[in-house]
Amino acid sequence: MPQESSPAIAALVKALEALPGYGPRSAQRAAFFLLSPKRRGELQALRQALADAETKVHRCPRCRTWCEGAVCEICADPSRDASLLCVVETVQDQMALEKSLNWPGLYFILGGRLSPMDDMGPTEIGFPELLVRIEEGLAENGLREIVVATSYTPEGDATAYYLMGAVKKRWPQLRITRLARGLPSGLEVEYTDLATIAAAIEDRRQIG
Amino acid sequence: MPQESSPAIAALVKALEALPGYGPRSAQRAAFFLLSPKRRGELQALRQALADAETKVHRCPRCRTWCEGAVCEICADPSRDASLLCVVETVQDQMALEKSLNWPGLYFILGGRLSPMDDMGPTEIGFPELLVRIEEGLAENGLREIVVATSYTPEGDATAYYLMGAVKKRWPQLRITRLARGLPSGLEVEYTDLATIAAAIEDRRQIG
Repeated sequence: MPQESSPAIAALVKALEALPGYGPRSAQRAAFFLLSPKRRGELQALRQALADAETKVHRCPRCRTWCEGAVCEICADPSRDASLLCVVETVQDQMALEKSLNWPGLYFILGGRLSPMDDMGPTEIGFPELLVRIEEGLAENGLREIVVATSYTPEGDATAYYLMGAVKKRWPQLRITRLARGLPSGLEVEYTDLATIAAAIEDRRQIG
Repeated sequence: MPQESSPAIAALVKALEALPGYGPRSAQRAAFFLLSPKRRGELQALRQALADAETKVHRCPRCRTWCEGAVCEICADPSRDASLLCVVETVQDQMALEKSLNWPGLYFILGGRLSPMDDMGPTEIGFPELLVRIEEGLAENGLREIVVATSYTPEGDATAYYLMGAVKKRWPQLRITRLARGLPSGLEVEYTDLATIAAAIEDRRQIG
């Protein structure tokens, strides 16, 4: 049995098992897939990509997204409105906002949300770095608004209110907002959950 | 956007996309999972495992399974009955047979099945190597039976009959068998497919 007699295959199966969505059987399938002589190119490409990710990719010192240069492309873009700073939980959230093509400002990536159960406190979600970033933004770029783009979940709410309170205490002049809450595009009112409908009624906007 | 602005991240997502069961979104999720500072160990383990798989693992020269030594553990095991040779399609099939704990002989791994549509002919499924292996077995170990353990699918049937004909022509004294076909354990007759029931009737065995 190759898997038991070859420590290299056993280690490969175990390493693949750590990937999201993979279990013991799918990891074994992927290992034999990569071992197949026809797939030598895929194996080498993945090994090289992992090595490059490890050595070349680092966090942008300004916004904490992943980048390869001194700062990321967005922070380096002079056409961005540096007076607006959007605070997101993850790089994936940042990518979703960017794809909406509707955010003219810069970003700051927390890298998580407040969650005492998972040992995620203010330090773990980059709060000290956020304060430094706000200080810089106020001194250099006329920062005037922080959008806290956390989700409307208990932990997203806690994160938003913690940041709001702590920032307001230091800089009362800063405007702090959250993303609007309401009906999602394309979903019938009938099928929208009640908490969302309640929020959409409360935040209703005048159209005429 | 890190994925577009970092070629290293784009290459990692593309390499992960090649894995079985992964698509663009799951590959992106896995890439960010591996980039997370908390997962540096997983990233390094996977990179190292891929490098080891590439350099340490090779085919056993006797049976063509994966191994790290000169020959695999099964071929090197003197307690195995070398007069019995089981021909399987894949290493996964060999592992399934081994787990059944019911095969006392040796193996030969074809690495595929005859399939003209996929350009899999006798050379692609290691038929020349099988002939050499049979010749050696006859000369050294008193080989007397070949079990063709291909599945009961059109391609498995074609592979079995091709091997049977070609081996019989060269060595008429060799016994050639296939795995029995019949009801699977634990499945009600009612829910068994008709082709299997027909085969089980034809191959019925006397029990009293």
